[in-house]
Amino acid sequence: MSVFDLDGVVQSLHTVRQQWREDQRRLLEPGGRDLPSRDALGGIVNTLKGVLFPMRLGPPDLRQESENLYIAHSLDSAMHALLAQAELELNYKRRRDDARSLTPVREDAVSRVRRFAQRLPDVRRLLDSDVLAAYHGDPAAGSVDEVLLCYPGVLAMIHHRLAHELYRLGLPLLARVLSELAHAQTGIDVHPGAQIGASFFIDHGTGVVIGETAVIGERVRVYQAVTLGAKRFPKNADGHLEKGLARHPIVEDDVVIYAGATVLGRVRLGRGAVIGGNVWLVDDVAPGAHVTQSASRDAGARVSAPKTAPADSTTTPSAVS
Amino acid sequence: MSVFDLDGVVQSLHTVRQQWREDQRRLLEPGGRDLPSRDALGGIVNTLKGVLFPMRLGPPDLRQESENLYIAHSLDSAMHALLAQAELELNYKRRRDDARSLTPVREDAVSRVRRFAQRLPDVRRLLDSDVLAAYHGDPAAGSVDEVLLCYPGVLAMIHHRLAHELYRLGLPLLARVLSELAHAQTGIDVHPGAQIGASFFIDHGTGVVIGETAVIGERVRVYQAVTLGAKRFPKNADGHLEKGLARHPIVEDDVVIYAGATVLGRVRLGRGAVIGGNVWLVDDVAPGAHVTQSASRDAGARVSAPKTAPADSTTTPSAVS
Amino acid sequence: MSVFDLDGVVQSLHTVRQQWREDQRRLLEPGGRDLPSRDALGGIVNTLKGVLFPMRLGPPDLRQESENLYIAHSLDSAMHALLAQAELELNYKRRRDDARSLTPVREDAVSRVRRFAQRLPDVRRLLDSDVLAAYHGDPAAGSVDEVLLCYPGVLAMIHHRLAHELYRLGLPLLARVLSELAHAQTGIDVHPGAQIGASFFIDHGTGVVIGETAVIGERVRVYQAVTLGAKRFPKNADGHLEKGLARHPIVEDDVVIYAGATVLGRVRLGRGAVIGGNVWLVDDVAPGAHVTQSASRDAGARVSAPKTAPADSTTTPSAVS
Amino acid sequence: MSVFDLDGVVQSLHTVRQQWREDQRRLLEPGGRDLPSRDALGGIVNTLKGVLFPMRLGPPDLRQESENLYIAHSLDSAMHALLAQAELELNYKRRRDDARSLTPVREDAVSRVRRFAQRLPDVRRLLDSDVLAAYHGDPAAGSVDEVLLCYPGVLAMIHHRLAHELYRLGLPLLARVLSELAHAQTGIDVHPGAQIGASFFIDHGTGVVIGETAVIGERVRVYQAVTLGAKRFPKNADGHLEKGLARHPIVEDDVVIYAGATVLGRVRLGRGAVIGGNVWLVDDVAPGAHVTQSASRDAGARVSAPKTAPADSTTTPSAVS
Amino acid sequence: MSVFDLDGVVQSLHTVRQQWREDQRRLLEPGGRDLPSRDALGGIVNTLKGVLFPMRLGPPDLRQESENLYIAHSLDSAMHALLAQAELELNYKRRRDDARSLTPVREDAVSRVRRFAQRLPDVRRLLDSDVLAAYHGDPAAGSVDEVLLCYPGVLAMIHHRLAHELYRLGLPLLARVLSELAHAQTGIDVHPGAQIGASFFIDHGTGVVIGETAVIGERVRVYQAVTLGAKRFPKNADGHLEKGLARHPIVEDDVVIYAGATVLGRVRLGRGAVIGGNVWLVDDVAPGAHVTQSASRDAGARVSAPKTAPADSTTTPSAVS
Amino acid sequence: MSVFDLDGVVQSLHTVRQQWREDQRRLLEPGGRDLPSRDALGGIVNTLKGVLFPMRLGPPDLRQESENLYIAHSLDSAMHALLAQAELELNYKRRRDDARSLTPVREDAVSRVRRFAQRLPDVRRLLDSDVLAAYHGDPAAGSVDEVLLCYPGVLAMIHHRLAHELYRLGLPLLARVLSELAHAQTGIDVHPGAQIGASFFIDHGTGVVIGETAVIGERVRVYQAVTLGAKRFPKNADGHLEKGLARHPIVEDDVVIYAGATVLGRVRLGRGAVIGGNVWLVDDVAPGAHVTQSASRDAGARVSAPKTAPADSTTTPSAVS
Repeated sequence: MSVFDLDGVVQSLHTVRQQWREDQRRLLEPGGRDLPSRDALGGIVNTLKGVLFPMRLGPPDLRQESENLYIAHSLDSAMHALLAQAELELNYKRRRDDARSLTPVREDAVSRVRRFAQRLPDVRRLLDSDVLAAYHGDPAAGSVDEVLLCYPGVLAMIHHRLAHELYRLGLPLLARVLSELAHAQTGIDVHPGAQIGASFFIDHGTGVVIGETAVIGERVRVYQAVTLGAKRFPKNADGHLEKGLARHPIVEDDVVIYAGATVLGRVRLGRGAVIGGNVWLVDDVAPGAHVTQSASRDAGARVSAPKTAPADSTTTPSAVS
Repeated sequence: MSVFDLDGVVQSLHTVRQQWREDQRRLLEPGGRDLPSRDALGGIVNTLKGVLFPMRLGPPDLRQESENLYIAHSLDSAMHALLAQAELELNYKRRRDDARSLTPVREDAVSRVRRFAQRLPDVRRLLDSDVLAAYHGDPAAGSVDEVLLCYPGVLAMIHHRLAHELYRLGLPLLARVLSELAHAQTGIDVHPGAQIGASFFIDHGTGVVIGETAVIGERVRVYQAVTLGAKRFPKNADGHLEKGLARHPIVEDDVVIYAGATVLGRVRLGRGAVIGGNVWLVDDVAPGAHVTQSASRDAGARVSAPKTAPADSTTTPSAVS
Repeated sequence: MSVFDLDGVVQSLHTVRQQWREDQRRLLEPGGRDLPSRDALGGIVNTLKGVLFPMRLGPPDLRQESENLYIAHSLDSAMHALLAQAELELNYKRRRDDARSLTPVREDAVSRVRRFAQRLPDVRRLLDSDVLAAYHGDPAAGSVDEVLLCYPGVLAMIHHRLAHELYRLGLPLLARVLSELAHAQTGIDVHPGAQIGASFFIDHGTGVVIGETAVIGERVRVYQAVTLGAKRFPKNADGHLEKGLARHPIVEDDVVIYAGATVLGRVRLGRGAVIGGNVWLVDDVAPGAHVTQSASRDAGARVSAPKTAPADSTTTPSAVS
Repeated sequence: MSVFDLDGVVQSLHTVRQQWREDQRRLLEPGGRDLPSRDALGGIVNTLKGVLFPMRLGPPDLRQESENLYIAHSLDSAMHALLAQAELELNYKRRRDDARSLTPVREDAVSRVRRFAQRLPDVRRLLDSDVLAAYHGDPAAGSVDEVLLCYPGVLAMIHHRLAHELYRLGLPLLARVLSELAHAQTGIDVHPGAQIGASFFIDHGTGVVIGETAVIGERVRVYQAVTLGAKRFPKNADGHLEKGLARHPIVEDDVVIYAGATVLGRVRLGRGAVIGGNVWLVDDVAPGAHVTQSASRDAGARVSAPKTAPADSTTTPSAVS
Repeated sequence: MSVFDLDGVVQSLHTVRQQWREDQRRLLEPGGRDLPSRDALGGIVNTLKGVLFPMRLGPPDLRQESENLYIAHSLDSAMHALLAQAELELNYKRRRDDARSLTPVREDAVSRVRRFAQRLPDVRRLLDSDVLAAYHGDPAAGSVDEVLLCYPGVLAMIHHRLAHELYRLGLPLLARVLSELAHAQTGIDVHPGAQIGASFFIDHGTGVVIGETAVIGERVRVYQAVTLGAKRFPKNADGHLEKGLARHPIVEDDVVIYAGATVLGRVRLGRGAVIGGNVWLVDDVAPGAHVTQSASRDAGARVSAPKTAPADSTTTPSAVS
Repeated sequence: MSVFDLDGVVQSLHTVRQQWREDQRRLLEPGGRDLPSRDALGGIVNTLKGVLFPMRLGPPDLRQESENLYIAHSLDSAMHALLAQAELELNYKRRRDDARSLTPVREDAVSRVRRFAQRLPDVRRLLDSDVLAAYHGDPAAGSVDEVLLCYPGVLAMIHHRLAHELYRLGLPLLARVLSELAHAQTGIDVHPGAQIGASFFIDHGTGVVIGETAVIGERVRVYQAVTLGAKRFPKNADGHLEKGLARHPIVEDDVVIYAGATVLGRVRLGRGAVIGGNVWLVDDVAPGAHVTQSASRDAGARVSAPKTAPADSTTTPSAVS
């Protein structure tokens, strides 16, 4: 009937889908969708931004004297919406694992969401430290409010600190969606499993990638296109990749990593170390050391003497601000 | 009248526009807009995502037993919307080329859109292979559904595989808009002309650039910030750049290219080769060879002996997952 | 009452907010929000895109004979909306600086917005040159309209040229929001303070970072992941970073910088210089010089003889188009 | 905290609600809403208008060759949405009746909705007759399409004929909502229980009221402000009003009732009778009789001789068209 | 496939539609919709309300100094939108009439819309007189602005005065849709053909019906549920109703008609006459006469002596204000 | 420039507006709109419906355990929005009255809105009585929830009881807008000044008009098209209509007024009186009396003996249910 002869296309698409479902051993259960929704999680994280920073990221007509009313209602709504998504993930997981559990899914989901909510004040506290770190770390920053309003690195951390709580509470799929929402907006790709201390600052940010088992201390600063990655993927006896091994760097307090630097494997960057732009690193770095590109290029990693003031006016290449 | 004295601004803007139109030899035809619409194409590709993966990317309240009805109607709508855009591109092209054609534009557009629709089952089949490649290639991937829902590399491939069909059907402008819509969301910039085999996986993805004449085999894996680019732009007798020359790399089956690597020119990366992170390559690589940065840095490109298992547990730098 | 025991969470969030406000010495003034709005500025810049390019980025049903009516009304609306945001920034600044001023904020804001409006014809003229530069600089570009419709580099320049005017008019926060809106969509991060001449072209663009005091001449072309950054952050007597120092490169007319190159500090790239892909540069480059990676890698920067045709068919690595 | 001292108001509202719930013996079950939704039903009836008249009341960009695809998908969506509402009504009813049933609610609802869907072709056929009746009955009507597009009487009949099917299928609450949606738009209040034959035409319509047990034949025409009401409400032994008694008029084929006429009780208006404007009637009228106001005014109801042509050019007061 | 067995329903609906199309001798032309759109006209009339009364019915953030810019742009948009609707009506008419015309439809439509636009200042002038009439005629009216903002009678007149212009310009279908949009909102049903002088006031309004050939002078006032209708529908030789005959009342200047009164046929209500509530009138009334219900009931129409002040403090039944 | 020659139209519209402003002695103050907004008030009343009946008219996904959070936040928002509208009305009034006041407008507005909020629990209590009256008064009503969801008479009372509070608090313009919003949806026109006791029920409702000074007792029931109006408009010495006089009926407890009845002037309908359909009344009615049309028609008003049960099974004409 249609000018495009779509009947055959519809039928072929059906055939391809059935093939996929058979290959994936999916039961053809009549019924609705069983996956968490990216849109729903986007709505939840937007509400939470207002809950965490009501007068700066909340609705424009909010007044300070109504903050708590707004937060109480919005948080309640967001937590119920999150509950629905958490149930979807838990159900999905049980179906895939063919798992039996003594705890009903709903009860389980309620408990996880409750614990998530209780973490929010700490999340806000950490984010305040990140905002201050950005303000103090970037001479171009005019105010703490500009930082919260504009900086992609701060947006990425809001998503990450929320996603990390979900990850710790056994909701890794929801966590991942939150991370990817930030990745799409900022070009910053932080795995929700990464552990990141207070006062963390990512400047510019595009192209930053931080892996699942990275551990980052306090007051660390990184610039665009920095990678904290894995060096190798060991295989197990079955020939499958080992999962869950600690395979990403440990970055101690007060480290600075300039743009384009790549740090791979379970290496340790000692307290106060400074890694220059474009440096390629697969070894540990001593506390306070300065690693620059020319050094690494010629000799594998020339290490300069430790300094007490890691961010002084000597050469610190590849910062832009 | 206005506090901003805008009359002069409106007039000056008019003058600048007229200057542009004269310089560009644009006729001042009264009438409406004659360019395809980015918003319209965004709507079409969103509908097609639901048509291709109804229970995962379609409307949240869709039920499996209604899939075909939904697809038949949505596909019909989307193809008519695409028809309108295709007519705009073909008209635009004829107007610019001052071309005469025996085929009326509408008939021509209908024929192209019909062929596009008939390619959709194959597109779905290829995308299924990409989803599986992502699932198997990333130990952090929890399920094929998580991959489809979250991974920017998969989103980029949905756009690319649709855009590539449009490109092949002589609708390069529509194709380009589709690609740029993905680029904006993922930071992955794949030219619609690039030919990419099944089971392709881009991990993390931000900063990946793949050029128009690149040819990529099956089961290839690339990481963030990889460039498959051109090395030189030859000029023709008139001093203008030659168009359409094959100028980007050929990547054979089972190659892996780690983050930040740059491969330039019509070089060939042999089957199963592994290119390390940040490597800079302007020459062919033998099948099974491993190229690492230190090698390329010191000696132009040290080539290690071929290996049967290209992704084993030896050093494969710069992966993050 | 709630299943999630949210009362304590609401209370704790209140406590954290109060702590922040005390630390930041914020008065607890009842009342509304006092910060410019990202959404409002997004709306303004969208309207301005239609004002600048009515038949290509304006509403789809606009007809050429109605252009001026549309522009007069839209510009008037946008300028009043901008006025409101400008007042917010000026008030915010006075409150923070505890400043007294003889000019009332509104009058001051009106004056700045009026001057901004009067700059729009020149902005359009510059953007026309950028569009032509993209069209001529990329052999894959099919038409000037495709360039305006699709290219992220052009979108980034629309935002930048508007943001730069705001920056010059003393509205740096509004300017910054405009820049970050483009950064989120394109992965291109240009500080609103950067001075950029006509016919500027950024190809692909993801990962480009251009700093606040950079000065760029006419007909310059840069590719993805290029950084024009600062090399060092001198401190003043108080131990705080010096602000406002000229710390980013000067790039003269007709320079080309290929993908991934990093140029740091107040160096000067002479007229017509060509900087190869991935090159790391912290020194001046003579006019017409070609700097390639292997040169810089081995010898700090091998300088080839000046050439009259800077973009000929010799090796110009890392372009993708 | 609020300037309006709302805490007490919130508390008092809570007290009033609790009082109501106790009075109504409502259990305080935590959980969501259990009533059908006016908005949801508004959406369903709008979809059904497109399903019944796709090229005239469907989406503006629908093409005739895509009608069936559109209908198949839209009808499927609407019936699933109706199913959800039907389950709400059935659950609500069982909860209120404290009823036990052998049929699960969902199965019961599916069966009712399936039968509703199967009635739609007959509903369309009846509505076609109504449209023709309006076209032929109103000399001002320019075309059948104008009638369908503009006439409130036709809109009211679309709602009524759908609502009547729901009423017959044991879903009186959904039916009532449909009727009231039309009442709000047209001022025409037809109880979903009323039985109305083909080719029914209500002109102008504001103020028309037709009661639950009214029975109306074919080719009947009524004007604005006509009431077909009950005359008395008999009580049963308990002192409560008897329910379900036939208490509204029977109107035989080809009757015309002019504006403002009131007909009360289970009277019978014989075939072809004509009731004049503002007439007050509580008795039967013989077939073909003409009842005019002056007659009724003076003598309770003067009955003129039957006529063969009931709508000829003699006085037929109070029509406006 | 569906649980509702909809295939048969879709097929039956198709059969019913085909039957209708055959009966109506509709060609089955593939293609889009050919009827004007109620939604589009609703949008146009809303824009025109802002054009006519910018500071009271225009956008809330409009400033007086921007009025003309707003009007110029909005009017231009609205007239182009109206042009599209006018073309639809003219095409529809030619198709139905199987008409040939020397004027192309577009040219014809442009001409009519241009004349419509030129009538707008007079329409505004008339509406100003209506607003004043409402303000002076209703002691409860607090201000002219309250009247414009709140009174359904004024809303009905805005629609009518616009619809009447369309009717006079040969676009009766568009005119009718405008009237019905007002009817739906106000319960006031004024045929677009009715000729109504300045300073007309309808109070309360629900149930008012005014027929196509009614002629109303200046300073007339009517209340709710007043009918100005036809008394008989003469038939022509073919047995069809005669069209276009003058069949509704003529109401001279300064007449007042109280609630519920019915006036039928081409009677003349003389200057300054007062018609009491619920009166039923089928004869002429002398200038200045007062007709009250008891009079009409007993004696057909008791006529009191003419009075110079038609609205003095003597009995004027059925006003509510 | 435009095909419609709109420049002259824009200019003429300007001239007409200026004429109006001069006639109305409006200062031409640059600036924004100064009238309350119908849309804003529509939003406020919708929020208040949810505040008053959260589980039945609130958001569909509200859960009972979150009621108070929802109410606290929504009420706070609505009261602030109402405050803005109240300030507009008070400013408008002072400007028109050229009034000086010791109380600043904002303080005055806050005080009125605070008192309004405190009346809400009583409003809910009265509305509960209205809902019960509808349920008990209409044998067709299936449940109290159906009544609240469907009945236009209940919707009109929600608006009226809120509007009446605003009227009493000196905000008659806001009150009037609320009333007209209900009038547009229901055809029921109740002036916000009318005083109406508990348990009031309007059945069907279209065409009901109740005037400003009407006083209605408890448990009163009225049907469609009932008018409680004024009989005369006395003039004062200046020839202007007297304002504020008590000119509408007093209706005592337990009265029933059937459809179409008209009661005019400051008459008193005694406790338990029953007024038949279409009756025309300008005199007092004794308690318990039954007035029927035939009586009034022949003898001015035949009065039957008082009865103890006013709504028994004897003739009570013109009810429809």
